[in-house]
Amino acid sequence: MDFFEIIEKRYSHKEKFLSDAVPLEKLELIAKAGLAAPSGGNSQCVRLIILKNRSEIQALSDLCKHGGLMTAPAAIAVLTDSSKQEPDTNFELEDYSAAVENMLLSAVALGYAALWLDYPFFNDDTQKSACEILGVPADHHLRVVMPIGLPDGEGTRREKLPFEARVSYGKFGQPKSKT
Amino acid sequence: MDFFEIIEKRYSHKEKFLSDAVPLEKLELIAKAGLAAPSGGNSQCVRLIILKNRSEIQALSDLCKHGGLMTAPAAIAVLTDSSKQEPDTNFELEDYSAAVENMLLSAVALGYAALWLDYPFFNDDTQKSACEILGVPADHHLRVVMPIGLPDGEGTRREKLPFEARVSYGKFGQPKSKT
Repeated sequence: MDFFEIIEKRYSHKEKFLSDAVPLEKLELIAKAGLAAPSGGNSQCVRLIILKNRSEIQALSDLCKHGGLMTAPAAIAVLTDSSKQEPDTNFELEDYSAAVENMLLSAVALGYAALWLDYPFFNDDTQKSACEILGVPADHHLRVVMPIGLPDGEGTRREKLPFEARVSYGKFGQPKSKT
Repeated sequence: MDFFEIIEKRYSHKEKFLSDAVPLEKLELIAKAGLAAPSGGNSQCVRLIILKNRSEIQALSDLCKHGGLMTAPAAIAVLTDSSKQEPDTNFELEDYSAAVENMLLSAVALGYAALWLDYPFFNDDTQKSACEILGVPADHHLRVVMPIGLPDGEGTRREKLPFEARVSYGKFGQPKSKT
């Protein structure tokens, strides 16, 4: 698939997945792509946990009860190491976001669907329980658990604003020159 | 170029660019890829300004004096619209980061080099001056100005930690099973 087709094909799959396993080497390829993303000051604070089958996902799935995670045959948990961060140069959010985007695109490139599932982990109790399940140390933060698999049918896509509403030329709000 | 080659080929080009113009339709393709990234709650808060030649970049370049921006034949400024954000559901950092990563990869896919140039705009005075230059309203925030062009030679890459130092299996810190 052409690169720009992959970009266009990616969407947030919130619906069911088929039970077909995702081979471990494909999950590793996705993880490798995530780690190839840039990081602020090259801190490389992103850490990943590959969850290769339902038995490794089940406790998290029971905790979150999110549609995508309840059926996904595989997932990758995305953490950041907060231990070496200074407030002025803390790029944990930017770094994990770039890594997640690389992994979402990689999943599509390999024929899978995936999801940037973060909101369950904004809740302090869920964050704590999920970190206990995964054995995550206190100085790390669980950001995302990304379900990955073959989608059970194409999921829904949300509408996007037109290109012209979000892109200017030369200056903010300036449309494309007609000349 | 294969998708995973693009992922591996991307690096932060901080050195000089050649003066060859980047055709506007390629800049638009890169911008379109940026806007195809997911956004929290589908807020689509990311806005882009295409700067298609040196005369559109020069004032910003004089302000920032960053190597990459001083020679780049084109750039894309990345903003977020902060006007409709609630503190609990503000994903401006995550959203612009995913958009920037899509654009960095797109630049590579088209044979260019690019850079996630953010740090000049952390300074309040530079942020204010840059927003004045670009005509950015007060309720928007300038995040990145991404220089794009043909690199004047391959730039330097910073060393990355080994895969095994950042990826666990099943639980945090657990290596790959040998069985």
